[in-house]
Amino acid sequence: MVQLLDKAISQDPLEIAIDLSQELAKTAVERDIQGGSPRDEIECLRQSGLLKLMVPKQYGGLGETSWPKAYRIIRELAKADGSVGQLFGNHNNLTSALKSATPKQQQKYCAATVEHNWFWANAANARDLRLVIQPEGDHFRLKGIKSFCTGARVSDVLMVGAVSEKDATTRIFAAIPTSREGLTVNDDWDNMGQRRTDSSSVSFDHVLVEADEIFVPPYPPDAPIVTLRSGFAQLIKVNVYLGIAQGVFAVAQDYTRTTSRAWMTSGVDKAAQDPYILHHYGELWVGLQAAAKLADDAAQTIQAASAKGPALTAEERADALVAVFTAKTFATRVGLEVTNRIFELTGSRATAKTYGLDRYWRDLRTFTLHDPLDYKIHDIGNWVLNRQAPPVTAYS
Amino acid sequence: MVQLLDKAISQDPLEIAIDLSQELAKTAVERDIQGGSPRDEIECLRQSGLLKLMVPKQYGGLGETSWPKAYRIIRELAKADGSVGQLFGNHNNLTSALKSATPKQQQKYCAATVEHNWFWANAANARDLRLVIQPEGDHFRLKGIKSFCTGARVSDVLMVGAVSEKDATTRIFAAIPTSREGLTVNDDWDNMGQRRTDSSSVSFDHVLVEADEIFVPPYPPDAPIVTLRSGFAQLIKVNVYLGIAQGVFAVAQDYTRTTSRAWMTSGVDKAAQDPYILHHYGELWVGLQAAAKLADDAAQTIQAASAKGPALTAEERADALVAVFTAKTFATRVGLEVTNRIFELTGSRATAKTYGLDRYWRDLRTFTLHDPLDYKIHDIGNWVLNRQAPPVTAYS
Amino acid sequence: MVQLLDKAISQDPLEIAIDLSQELAKTAVERDIQGGSPRDEIECLRQSGLLKLMVPKQYGGLGETSWPKAYRIIRELAKADGSVGQLFGNHNNLTSALKSATPKQQQKYCAATVEHNWFWANAANARDLRLVIQPEGDHFRLKGIKSFCTGARVSDVLMVGAVSEKDATTRIFAAIPTSREGLTVNDDWDNMGQRRTDSSSVSFDHVLVEADEIFVPPYPPDAPIVTLRSGFAQLIKVNVYLGIAQGVFAVAQDYTRTTSRAWMTSGVDKAAQDPYILHHYGELWVGLQAAAKLADDAAQTIQAASAKGPALTAEERADALVAVFTAKTFATRVGLEVTNRIFELTGSRATAKTYGLDRYWRDLRTFTLHDPLDYKIHDIGNWVLNRQAPPVTAYS
Amino acid sequence: MVQLLDKAISQDPLEIAIDLSQELAKTAVERDIQGGSPRDEIECLRQSGLLKLMVPKQYGGLGETSWPKAYRIIRELAKADGSVGQLFGNHNNLTSALKSATPKQQQKYCAATVEHNWFWANAANARDLRLVIQPEGDHFRLKGIKSFCTGARVSDVLMVGAVSEKDATTRIFAAIPTSREGLTVNDDWDNMGQRRTDSSSVSFDHVLVEADEIFVPPYPPDAPIVTLRSGFAQLIKVNVYLGIAQGVFAVAQDYTRTTSRAWMTSGVDKAAQDPYILHHYGELWVGLQAAAKLADDAAQTIQAASAKGPALTAEERADALVAVFTAKTFATRVGLEVTNRIFELTGSRATAKTYGLDRYWRDLRTFTLHDPLDYKIHDIGNWVLNRQAPPVTAYS
Repeated sequence: MVQLLDKAISQDPLEIAIDLSQELAKTAVERDIQGGSPRDEIECLRQSGLLKLMVPKQYGGLGETSWPKAYRIIRELAKADGSVGQLFGNHNNLTSALKSATPKQQQKYCAATVEHNWFWANAANARDLRLVIQPEGDHFRLKGIKSFCTGARVSDVLMVGAVSEKDATTRIFAAIPTSREGLTVNDDWDNMGQRRTDSSSVSFDHVLVEADEIFVPPYPPDAPIVTLRSGFAQLIKVNVYLGIAQGVFAVAQDYTRTTSRAWMTSGVDKAAQDPYILHHYGELWVGLQAAAKLADDAAQTIQAASAKGPALTAEERADALVAVFTAKTFATRVGLEVTNRIFELTGSRATAKTYGLDRYWRDLRTFTLHDPLDYKIHDIGNWVLNRQAPPVTAYS
Repeated sequence: MVQLLDKAISQDPLEIAIDLSQELAKTAVERDIQGGSPRDEIECLRQSGLLKLMVPKQYGGLGETSWPKAYRIIRELAKADGSVGQLFGNHNNLTSALKSATPKQQQKYCAATVEHNWFWANAANARDLRLVIQPEGDHFRLKGIKSFCTGARVSDVLMVGAVSEKDATTRIFAAIPTSREGLTVNDDWDNMGQRRTDSSSVSFDHVLVEADEIFVPPYPPDAPIVTLRSGFAQLIKVNVYLGIAQGVFAVAQDYTRTTSRAWMTSGVDKAAQDPYILHHYGELWVGLQAAAKLADDAAQTIQAASAKGPALTAEERADALVAVFTAKTFATRVGLEVTNRIFELTGSRATAKTYGLDRYWRDLRTFTLHDPLDYKIHDIGNWVLNRQAPPVTAYS
Repeated sequence: MVQLLDKAISQDPLEIAIDLSQELAKTAVERDIQGGSPRDEIECLRQSGLLKLMVPKQYGGLGETSWPKAYRIIRELAKADGSVGQLFGNHNNLTSALKSATPKQQQKYCAATVEHNWFWANAANARDLRLVIQPEGDHFRLKGIKSFCTGARVSDVLMVGAVSEKDATTRIFAAIPTSREGLTVNDDWDNMGQRRTDSSSVSFDHVLVEADEIFVPPYPPDAPIVTLRSGFAQLIKVNVYLGIAQGVFAVAQDYTRTTSRAWMTSGVDKAAQDPYILHHYGELWVGLQAAAKLADDAAQTIQAASAKGPALTAEERADALVAVFTAKTFATRVGLEVTNRIFELTGSRATAKTYGLDRYWRDLRTFTLHDPLDYKIHDIGNWVLNRQAPPVTAYS
Repeated sequence: MVQLLDKAISQDPLEIAIDLSQELAKTAVERDIQGGSPRDEIECLRQSGLLKLMVPKQYGGLGETSWPKAYRIIRELAKADGSVGQLFGNHNNLTSALKSATPKQQQKYCAATVEHNWFWANAANARDLRLVIQPEGDHFRLKGIKSFCTGARVSDVLMVGAVSEKDATTRIFAAIPTSREGLTVNDDWDNMGQRRTDSSSVSFDHVLVEADEIFVPPYPPDAPIVTLRSGFAQLIKVNVYLGIAQGVFAVAQDYTRTTSRAWMTSGVDKAAQDPYILHHYGELWVGLQAAAKLADDAAQTIQAASAKGPALTAEERADALVAVFTAKTFATRVGLEVTNRIFELTGSRATAKTYGLDRYWRDLRTFTLHDPLDYKIHDIGNWVLNRQAPPVTAYS
């Protein structure tokens, strides 16, 4: 499926994403069936130039600093393929975080990302504490395993999150080449959805970490500007959810217009004139519009909060996270509704595997379980009612 | 309840509305029980200066031309009192429409509105065709009856919509003093909600209409800029719905925090810590946020469409109306959910009449029936799926 | 409104209830507006003979021992008037409980109930611990106050629940004449719904209780047959909820068929042919049918459980209560949906106070708050998932 | 997977089904992935003796005449495998219909069904009119194609529904051996759900039909007892839906209890104690109970209606069909909710393909599209509101 997209660097990244999304859509059904590793997809991203999206211009990147814009691009890709949305979202989360590194690290990693057109992934699942980092001389060693390392196998560089033997609560992050000795990407991802993310586990057998590969956050770990960060990752998911829902909605419309048959007692000639089908389309549209407004609004809010840097207050962090959680709650629910109900708008024959319409639900259902929505809703309520800010976790 | 608000004309109208809303809230329960005519409420509006909101500055008005801002003010008033929201919304719909009148009419009506601090109402229900206008010499006569004339009794001037005997499809509009001979406001409004709108019928017994009191639209009746107009009135309703829902949400929060008791098997000390109550608050908040975003977005969209004037295309009109219908669908549903579910967050004792918490549901339930939501959803679906624009009616 | 119903005692009580319900419907709107005490309603019940429904035949009662049948009668009355449903339900809960009294008490209270056609009410709200009972010589004295004593003012005899000064956890029950010295029914019920239940508080100023007026349960307080009892009271509520919902559904249908107008763009002549209105009626019917099946099933289940007497196991009690909670959950939700959505089926004009269609929602919304539904759902889940039986409270 | 079940013919068929369901569950995930033809499953049914369930005892069958019992068995099988539920349901629909055949036909087909342990399938999709039957001498010939012939490939005998060239409205039915010359089962079923039904199309190339293979209904085609018949097929689907939902609910419970992890901010040790998870289980249970009651009730109703034979009135037919549609509406919605929401109760890791939890949703989503639910709801509404009976179609 690799097709040289040959885009001028000057082109609008969103337009590039729209083109790329259309390319990806052509093979998405087939790739979903195959599962396996997203080599082709990452190669497409590489050729499109989008991997450099959030790398500063001074290092040769596209220099996009607006998350609202980045989210739109992620959403666009997710319309065709939820897995690509997730992979690309994570990549940007990592490259954009480089700005918190030391100037030397920024130079090193940014320049290499541009030069080699690196794809970044992570091995940092916060609920899995089995990966331990230990000092050894002037460097460190990683030992253990990390589950759910989305895209690790096809990545060039891996952001690793580990704990020390003595303190399981503080996570230490390091960026190392995926090819480093002792690092093995296992083959244990075979899921009902997001099948092409290859979120397998990664084993570390005394893997070397150089001292300058470790990322020390520039602010205290409980500073609002630091604890705000989980919100960016959450909003990546939101935009993938939304993209999936918008994607299937567009496909369903096309099917209803061209292929669905009017029901025998409906009194209309075409399914697209059926009063109930029109009503369903109206309802789903309303939900999708609301989800998009909330996602866009949350993006603006968290971007503005982030721009305050260390001056960000705990209250402002809470407001921003709650905006993200609000968008997440809504996108999850609308997404599940849309991926379910479109079948009532297309009809029975649309369940043939050749259309692959179930992949949207499988992708969304899988990815919306990342962390439990109920506790996001709880956190919203606790902020709205009691002004209790979301607890500081890797998810809030 | 009349209290001189004594606001400097230079104050932000939204702040005036916030103050006024707090004043109105103090007596809203009592006024709802009484029903009857909103004399006090209109007097409050008069004293606040807000009746001049959308009258151009050149005639002494506040010169507000932004509907997004006007809608915010309407919403603010509706938080305390849905009836006032509706009355004030209608007033602005009429005063803002003066800009389509002849320069002479604009001068006459605008100046008088400012000088006498007029409150405008209408007798123009489009589904009631019993009011007939007939030429008589160089003037006209109105004969018949018009139902649901919100606020007519307390109005200074009435925008009347009538049909000629020969053509029941074209509505003719005229602005006449409410005190004109032969015009009688009946006393037949006693409803379960929006009780202080006094939406009684008005009888016309050969009521004189001068030729220069008739408003001739400057564009053909099927021009998109003309058929867009119903959207402004629809969005007034949306903002009243939203205000009601936001109003009761705030009141419920206060009650839960201060008065609700924790349930005996909940394991928490205070109702505000109950996991289910927090979850409900979270869910309602999500809905309210989405409703607000859609309403704000629709306001921007229709304002921008309107600004195109006669250049507005049919497609742009459809887009704007569909944005309004989308906001209406959502606000209706969220509003009904909020006005229902807050009782589960406050508890049994909050059903005492002294709190009047049912008035929010009664007001919203009543006003959301103005025209059937199902056909708004149908129209959205027909636009989204088939690019069939909403039919031209007084409601779309 | 009192009309002598003059029913032969041999007539089917359900038919009597159907007739009585139709009588009550004629004045229900007016009585709801008035509020106040249900003197007329109780007089109607008295004349109908239904107050003797569950009094054993040996004492001259109708001897109904089937709660499934009693619930059908309660539901029938609630169709016309939720307040009457609640009053009559409570009365039966008390008269049916006499079978747990001593033979002497049974003789005394049953015979008097038949002879004087007594209406029973209670002063036993379990969440209000302010009423204290103290021994004084060979009798007892009640001191304090009890809130929410539905129907107490118009009752002949009152089942009082009090605690001793030393032990606030054990409730002691006694049946005393409402006319007893020192007992005052206050006038503090003015609620948004169930307005004619007169659920005012009752004050007790050293009120005498004879020793033989105290009801000592024949089984240990934690015996499943005893802790099952709350289920009967819960199911009374369920049937009132269901009756209210079925009542408004019937009224709405009649309105739609005779009065509602077809919408201008619907393409049909009559509202009753509108595809969306038909769809709504279909949906509400589905919900009502499900609610009725669950309520009927729960009645059978708890009746069968109760018939096991002291042999009832903790598991059987849990099964029966969970059936009741299941019915309650469903009836609450369907009821709220029906009482809300019927307005979309009748249209705007049906909000006139003369129709009083909002009273169904107000009644249901009020009465469904009796105890929080969330904890019923929690208890269902805990039984289904973990085999943890509902905790023993006055509500479960 | 074939295991000799070796059940005595005297055993309760429901118990046989429960055992068989447990057997099928062991391989269901694997078979769903493979797709293909249900040879093993039909062999299991054959060995279990259940294929003779509704064949009269006089011919050696089990003689079950109660559809309520048959539906329970179908539901039981569907708990493990929706495809088997559908296949077995269809088989019973055909064998039970033999009682409408001529005595000679009954003797022939029933005896052969028992002797050869036949599995019946059909080629009778009513929306596909491409299969034509023509007289040829003293026999007939079939020519054309029929889509969606569930289980045809593995069937012994096929009930074919065709139209004559002159009259496309009257369907003619005949039962022929699947092995007959000219009959080809194509290989065009590859769907997202109900994958092991092998609902491929069947081509007919001048296939012989003997005169005595044609089934002539004993009553006029518009007799209520005839037009009631579609209800039995509809209720098969309902019970398959319900079985699928109950099946996944049981599996999810087991997973939550044994495998799910408590969320980090939940404050509980085990997921099964999480207040939100308990609440979700409670809610889903309520829905499943309601669905089961409605399905059981509809089974009783249609069985009783059918027992009236030619005396069945149009009104009684409508009541029975509406009961079936009510059950269908509810089972569809609850089923979709359960198959979606169980993932929130099990958590992210439960999306691994090894668990195959998505197959329940894929099966249900596919099969619930058989004919559009909206028109079932429409028909319910039209009966409830207007006493307009469901139109006579192959689906109502």
